[in-house]
Amino acid sequence: MTASVSSKTPQNLTWLYRGVSEIFPDQPDSDDAALSLAQRLAQTDRPLRVKLGIDPTGSDIHLGHSIPVRKLRAFQDAGHTAVLIIGDFTARIGDPTGKSEVRRQLTSEEVAQNAQTYLDQVRPILDFDTPGRLEVRYNSEWLSKLDLSKISELLSTMTVGQMLAKEGFAERYEKENPIFLHEFLYPLMQGYDSVAVQADVELGGTDQKFNIAVGRDLQRHFGQMPQFGLLMPILIGTDGEKKMSKSLGNYVGLSEDPLWMYQKLEKTPDHLLEQYFELLTNLPLDGLPEQPRDRQKLLAFDIVSQYYGKDAAELAVRDAQAITAGNTNSAKAVPEFYLKEVNFPAKLFFILGKSGLCSSGTEARRQIQGGGVKLDGDRVSDVNLTFESPSELDGRVLQVGKNKSVRLIG
Amino acid sequence: MTASVSSKTPQNLTWLYRGVSEIFPDQPDSDDAALSLAQRLAQTDRPLRVKLGIDPTGSDIHLGHSIPVRKLRAFQDAGHTAVLIIGDFTARIGDPTGKSEVRRQLTSEEVAQNAQTYLDQVRPILDFDTPGRLEVRYNSEWLSKLDLSKISELLSTMTVGQMLAKEGFAERYEKENPIFLHEFLYPLMQGYDSVAVQADVELGGTDQKFNIAVGRDLQRHFGQMPQFGLLMPILIGTDGEKKMSKSLGNYVGLSEDPLWMYQKLEKTPDHLLEQYFELLTNLPLDGLPEQPRDRQKLLAFDIVSQYYGKDAAELAVRDAQAITAGNTNSAKAVPEFYLKEVNFPAKLFFILGKSGLCSSGTEARRQIQGGGVKLDGDRVSDVNLTFESPSELDGRVLQVGKNKSVRLIG
Repeated sequence: MTASVSSKTPQNLTWLYRGVSEIFPDQPDSDDAALSLAQRLAQTDRPLRVKLGIDPTGSDIHLGHSIPVRKLRAFQDAGHTAVLIIGDFTARIGDPTGKSEVRRQLTSEEVAQNAQTYLDQVRPILDFDTPGRLEVRYNSEWLSKLDLSKISELLSTMTVGQMLAKEGFAERYEKENPIFLHEFLYPLMQGYDSVAVQADVELGGTDQKFNIAVGRDLQRHFGQMPQFGLLMPILIGTDGEKKMSKSLGNYVGLSEDPLWMYQKLEKTPDHLLEQYFELLTNLPLDGLPEQPRDRQKLLAFDIVSQYYGKDAAELAVRDAQAITAGNTNSAKAVPEFYLKEVNFPAKLFFILGKSGLCSSGTEARRQIQGGGVKLDGDRVSDVNLTFESPSELDGRVLQVGKNKSVRLIG
Repeated sequence: MTASVSSKTPQNLTWLYRGVSEIFPDQPDSDDAALSLAQRLAQTDRPLRVKLGIDPTGSDIHLGHSIPVRKLRAFQDAGHTAVLIIGDFTARIGDPTGKSEVRRQLTSEEVAQNAQTYLDQVRPILDFDTPGRLEVRYNSEWLSKLDLSKISELLSTMTVGQMLAKEGFAERYEKENPIFLHEFLYPLMQGYDSVAVQADVELGGTDQKFNIAVGRDLQRHFGQMPQFGLLMPILIGTDGEKKMSKSLGNYVGLSEDPLWMYQKLEKTPDHLLEQYFELLTNLPLDGLPEQPRDRQKLLAFDIVSQYYGKDAAELAVRDAQAITAGNTNSAKAVPEFYLKEVNFPAKLFFILGKSGLCSSGTEARRQIQGGGVKLDGDRVSDVNLTFESPSELDGRVLQVGKNKSVRLIG
């Protein structure tokens, strides 16, 4: 591996710069870095340790989350070591005030399960197999051992003014919205992770600049060479407007069914296509098809292939075409929903919610009222449509909008 | 002891109120206190636990420090339990930035030695002997066991705004002087001490109101009944102007020689006499002598008696009179200084510094130049006066100003 690392030269760093928002420090001799990251990569005689922190408070991750993971893979392919840090301790602390739903305290079982789900979802992206290319670490390993004296030392490296300069804190303090003191611990915990794993580079979204800089300060405090920060853009969602997010519904989940994934991505708004190609594929940007429609299809096909392989992607293409043409029953890869999860007699809107086609029974009723629901291609208009037994529905295709269908199994 | 506690009635609480600046909460039903402290004292069926925290970062303590300790004794005499907390853990943490001389990190040996010196000095004030009247606790007992998750919980009980409202922090933040984050831990550590010992009352100077209130909040957070705070005034020093402090030289140390203590106190400025009597003695305030000079002598005699007993106080009175009259050699209780601590030949200014008569060799030279130094009653004017051997000085009395003398022992 050492050989593969030292053979790199500054000329072939396109893998490094693709899609990057910022690398800091960006100049040799700026701050305390004697080298730029490019020089460091060219001159190192050992694999660099490239850190990415994972917050296991949720379980589903989407294409937005995949961006720094893909960059991590690029480092692996260049011979470096990906250090994936599962923030299990941070997640278990949660928000001790209990005031924030977002930062709810998780049990260690929930955290372990979320971490496993996370790893399953990034498995297609990362190199899990080549020896020395991946370290998965749980930050409870070192954070659970910190005592008050060490925590005081961590806190002593920063001033209130520096912490309040952090995006988010500044506005809240200005508006006199309460900032609880333990919130100051999070950047320090994340920063101490860099010390614990001796990171050379930390990856993150542009919203992570402050935390990565705290890591640099702590490493310097503990006598280590400070890591480089490499920031990737925050992905705009499929609505073309807002940050991709599960709660906004403009996301493509990594564990979504290949057909659904394909259907969402083949409608990627034109103005996002270039960024999606750059951030979500390895395709050369100068050889893309000219027609926007062809680009959309290529993007969708490439991404589905990454997560499910070429065969599944080809099946998704054919099924999507069949569904668009109204031939729902000829679609082969429509995901299946097993009706044994439903108690009969059952209203259709309940089945729509339960199957994941709609986010809730309420949304399902809205979709029926809006004319967006079809059963075997026939529009459903009765909000209270009820079925007495699974056998009435077995084998039929239930569809919401143009994107989502399931085949019901009785 | 229970009997002595329950026999108290609200009428005989002069011991409680003497010299007090503030008791909070001060009204029944204010905040979450169902009772005022007076009612609590009258109704309790067990000894209350009365906390006083001690900072063992220094070793010498003075009359200013003695004030809350004396109040603690009053609680002991009323049947309650004094809980003296040595902040050994806090002292050992020190200031991890190393930027403040004041908060230098101490070794555990230094802390243990300072704590012992402290206990030796307050021994004349407190009841160390009656069973159940004194608990001495070291806060490392509980603070060293806190992990990050518990510390996060403590921090989560307060907001940045609340912490920055603390006297000291507010001005520094306003002036953009750096406040390091670990400084926020001190009030929480002191507050958690109250939780750990289940304090019913905490004593302190008026500068401790914030910290004692944090203790109340933490007790409430952990389901305990919040303690009362009882604040005592900050003592003005013997200069009659500034807060008593070792660094200002306007202090009377509890371990000072009885003669020096007497000499300092018999010059207490008139306008401080009443407060000194109130805070530093148990003498009834309505039976004091009319003449200020008699008051000064009574004050000095009473305080020296408290720390050294009546015989030593009477000897100090006689010696002080002899010295005032110029008969230094007839003074019997002049403290001795052993010249074996000095390397000969030795300059007199060096001996003055070494003996404690002057705070340094520099100050000693200044005193000689100013005509303030006498040897056996004869003024010394030669700044470079040098002695070849201890025998030249054996038995002679060295004096600085009107207050301080030592007998040199060769």
